[in-house]
Amino acid sequence: MSEIKIIDVKRSIFEDNTADADRLRQELKEKHTFLLNIMSSPGAGKTTTLLALMKILKDRLHIGIMEANIDSVVDTKTMLNAGVEAIQIHTGGMCHLDADMTRQGLKELKSENFDLVILENVGNLVCPAEFDTGAVKNVTILSVPEGDDKPLKYPLMYEVCDLLIVNKIDTLPYFDFDKEKVIQYAKMRNPNIDVIFISAKTGEGVSDLANWIEKHVEDWK
Amino acid sequence: MSEIKIIDVKRSIFEDNTADADRLRQELKEKHTFLLNIMSSPGAGKTTTLLALMKILKDRLHIGIMEANIDSVVDTKTMLNAGVEAIQIHTGGMCHLDADMTRQGLKELKSENFDLVILENVGNLVCPAEFDTGAVKNVTILSVPEGDDKPLKYPLMYEVCDLLIVNKIDTLPYFDFDKEKVIQYAKMRNPNIDVIFISAKTGEGVSDLANWIEKHVEDWK
Repeated sequence: MSEIKIIDVKRSIFEDNTADADRLRQELKEKHTFLLNIMSSPGAGKTTTLLALMKILKDRLHIGIMEANIDSVVDTKTMLNAGVEAIQIHTGGMCHLDADMTRQGLKELKSENFDLVILENVGNLVCPAEFDTGAVKNVTILSVPEGDDKPLKYPLMYEVCDLLIVNKIDTLPYFDFDKEKVIQYAKMRNPNIDVIFISAKTGEGVSDLANWIEKHVEDWK
Repeated sequence: MSEIKIIDVKRSIFEDNTADADRLRQELKEKHTFLLNIMSSPGAGKTTTLLALMKILKDRLHIGIMEANIDSVVDTKTMLNAGVEAIQIHTGGMCHLDADMTRQGLKELKSENFDLVILENVGNLVCPAEFDTGAVKNVTILSVPEGDDKPLKYPLMYEVCDLLIVNKIDTLPYFDFDKEKVIQYAKMRNPNIDVIFISAKTGEGVSDLANWIEKHVEDWK
């Protein structure tokens, strides 16, 4: 396993994060690098989904991963063990990343070498939605055991996301989760949101997700 | 169903939240009211656990519930439908409650009428752990589908809690979750933390949890 690179990012010096995020997107555009920001509750399956995606996308795109956590390196270890290029970002206790913190991570990852950089944001349905990271697209994962009512309770997360991934659909028989309702609630927050149902564990639906990502990466070039 | 009382709480005017939380605990002590703060990720089962607890505790203690959410009243509706006294606290987009916001809720609930007030905090493993609400005891719920590694990734939550409830143990056969490991990781963050395994759905373990709470409420009087 490669050595784990840990970046301790500092809070942004920019007062206007939104303007800085727009600058970062422009920088990425010039380098033909697509940044995808993945957000979810703790334990919704961000890391497992990335591993499942890598199996399909690694031969189609050059991909780097940034794992953001308050502490620990377990997710980055998992990625490196799977042969994926990844770095660990530690947020120093903060519940989100802003655009400048993201920029610090991209620099260390040497993002100009990649078609696609995926940021696995801090597990949290509130704060990460409030800060534009400079990503080209924002994605949220909701897992079946969490319940179909999350778009009602965490509105901003669904408003800012381009795609809702519903994960752990292999566990649908064991939970009271209504697929139609979750689409309805998510569209109530954002009529343009796409919804893809997957099981990162069994692989069901993951090729649809890979195609969604690849299409947007190609559009960005 | 009773009318739903919604409190829009304002950010605290106190710079020193910790000192204010100590003041609030003293006020609660004088009124013989025990405040329990329940925290977890979104979807770990806070509301379902409370409903299961109410069945056991409602004849033993006089209990009021404060449901804190960024938006929606679904949890409070659930409580009122079950015949539980409850109010809804809206945080105005904030990811946590501080002591003064909690005090505003307690006032509206008329907390002096209750032996036990339970605050269901915003679903979030990061921010709520950073703000002392004035609660006598702090509890966190981790559900089996989230995985046993959460104490590694969200250290502060486990450091500040007196009890870890592991919920949804009826789903253990379907997930890769190690009961011994989660105890080990939680104790690594806080050697004094108690751990109780439950299924709010089937009721398994809930009487142990009810006894834990009742003992602490009696100790406070």
